Amino acid sequence: MRAAEPVGRWLSVAGPESDIVVSSRVRLARNVADVPFTTKAKPAEQTRVIEATRSALAEGGYLDDGGFVDDEQLTDEHARFLLERHLVSPDFVENKVKRGLYVSRDETLSLMVNEEDHLRIQSLAAGLDFAAALGQAFRLDEELESRLGYAFSPQFGFLTACPTNVGTGMRASVLVHMPGLVLTKEIDKVLRGAAHIGLMVRGLHGEGSETRGNFFQVSNQKTLGQSESEILETVTEICRQVVEYERKAREYLVENLRAEVEDKVFRSLATLRSARILTSNEAVNLLATVRFGVSLGIINEISLPEVSRLMILVRPANLQVLLGETLKPPERDERRATFVREALVK
Amino acid sequence: MRAAEPVGRWLSVAGPESDIVVSSRVRLARNVADVPFTTKAKPAEQTRVIEATRSALAEGGYLDDGGFVDDEQLTDEHARFLLERHLVSPDFVENKVKRGLYVSRDETLSLMVNEEDHLRIQSLAAGLDFAAALGQAFRLDEELESRLGYAFSPQFGFLTACPTNVGTGMRASVLVHMPGLVLTKEIDKVLRGAAHIGLMVRGLHGEGSETRGNFFQVSNQKTLGQSESEILETVTEICRQVVEYERKAREYLVENLRAEVEDKVFRSLATLRSARILTSNEAVNLLATVRFGVSLGIINEISLPEVSRLMILVRPANLQVLLGETLKPPERDERRATFVREALVK
Repeated sequence: MRAAEPVGRWLSVAGPESDIVVSSRVRLARNVADVPFTTKAKPAEQTRVIEATRSALAEGGYLDDGGFVDDEQLTDEHARFLLERHLVSPDFVENKVKRGLYVSRDETLSLMVNEEDHLRIQSLAAGLDFAAALGQAFRLDEELESRLGYAFSPQFGFLTACPTNVGTGMRASVLVHMPGLVLTKEIDKVLRGAAHIGLMVRGLHGEGSETRGNFFQVSNQKTLGQSESEILETVTEICRQVVEYERKAREYLVENLRAEVEDKVFRSLATLRSARILTSNEAVNLLATVRFGVSLGIINEISLPEVSRLMILVRPANLQVLLGETLKPPERDERRATFVREALVK
Repeated sequence: MRAAEPVGRWLSVAGPESDIVVSSRVRLARNVADVPFTTKAKPAEQTRVIEATRSALAEGGYLDDGGFVDDEQLTDEHARFLLERHLVSPDFVENKVKRGLYVSRDETLSLMVNEEDHLRIQSLAAGLDFAAALGQAFRLDEELESRLGYAFSPQFGFLTACPTNVGTGMRASVLVHMPGLVLTKEIDKVLRGAAHIGLMVRGLHGEGSETRGNFFQVSNQKTLGQSESEILETVTEICRQVVEYERKAREYLVENLRAEVEDKVFRSLATLRSARILTSNEAVNLLATVRFGVSLGIINEISLPEVSRLMILVRPANLQVLLGETLKPPERDERRATFVREALVK
């Protein structure tokens, strides 16, 4: 459906603070008026939402710059491929109801139909850049609202399947790389501080999954009683503080523990360049350390976008799409090692 | 006293089966007649043994091709340096009595004075080669016997401080590298078999130290009731069997788990070539895996003697002599990494 090699534009270009902030994401939860929420809707109603959305996207010109798939076309394998690329949510992959999905060609904008809500608009931007992410999300949002009609209460705002999303229906999050604070053991303090002022902190893949490679997702918990711009200001401000802490930790490390950091970085790169068997988890963790080394200027021959690209391509579904083969895990681990070695040994 | 770079000839040349058998060692325990055993001897008597031995060595021409040091000249640092080179025993290093030591220039022959016995002759040969080791040990033994006169009983043979050495006073041992049997998990069975027929199996540095890098020392336990040649035949025969088992294990691994073995080998080499901090233990373990890779033909650009040389030079006392500096452990670990990297990156 899509060439496997390129990854989302939000990963392949640099953005503000992108040595620390990988990406900014805005997600809007919306529901079509006069249709029961996804879990209460009958299959025919679910299908109606999918088809109405497809038409709205087509009329708005969105399908000229992206693709739409429905349940018939969306295999489990392809759903996992998209999950690894941060374009759909784990819930969407697991969902047993009829689903639909739009993804823009540059993979910065996606729309899940019949996830928890009828519509989940998601917009991604490189680095700390909510303006870019929000602008794009709002354009699609307005397009859909005008054609579909949303469930909206003048008192509460947008109505959503889960009360925690009522109001703006917006979640704003940043994916932050904080190896410095992990190494100086200050990370817990910083995370507790963020939680204390009402932000949520999670590992790389959202709820229920472990934190890998020292990546953390920081997002707002409140959706009610604040405007979109107030939410974004809060998240941005906290994010800037976190970035500041991480920079201080990195300065400390470079000044006081340079050999230890270089040791970690060079060992990770050497392992990626020489292993014959690599699991997805190990590859992601090693690449995360290499990312740290690139950010610190310890490694110069590899760029951050190149590291980000590899972090997506080494994951199981993406690797298989890339290789054009379905492989059992042991074979996959060997092929992954070969792929990474060839990508990094120049 | 001695240039640090070269290591013993028993390590720097290839010998029979030397892909598996690192070295063969013969040790003879002897005591001078009419002088109490070392622990019972008065300081003046201990000194007398040292001086008599020095004279005997000089008269036999041994000092032309090696050096003799006594307690005054032997620093703790130098004793550890020699221990790491397998030229003295841990007991000799710890010994509080007056000691003397002869080491031949090529480091294949040494003589400890006032270890547990008055004299401990030790001879080393590359690979499985007791003929070479024994020949050299016997030549020195005869030289000393004729000049010093040994404590000898026609009924029991050579008399020694510990009853377990009475008779031939000989211990014959091989240092065997068995990563194959460790990986196939058959090592315990093989070691139990060797113990069952009266051989002793120990880790790299003899009693009390852990086995590092999958090196094992196999030696005879009996010294009484068998002639020297019978002992050597037994140890050689068992060693050949052990070598055969190890070869079979390696064949199995190469045929069935080639990727796993290559992965281990290439990661180890890459870590040695890129680490910025290396402890002595880690370096020895990684070099042992590289040795395995060289033996299997997975690594071609490094020779076995080169690996053996590095395994000695990375150890703390040797490294410090090599660098000409006394260093604290953290600094030593950094300098060790630099030394290894420069030695292996060509």
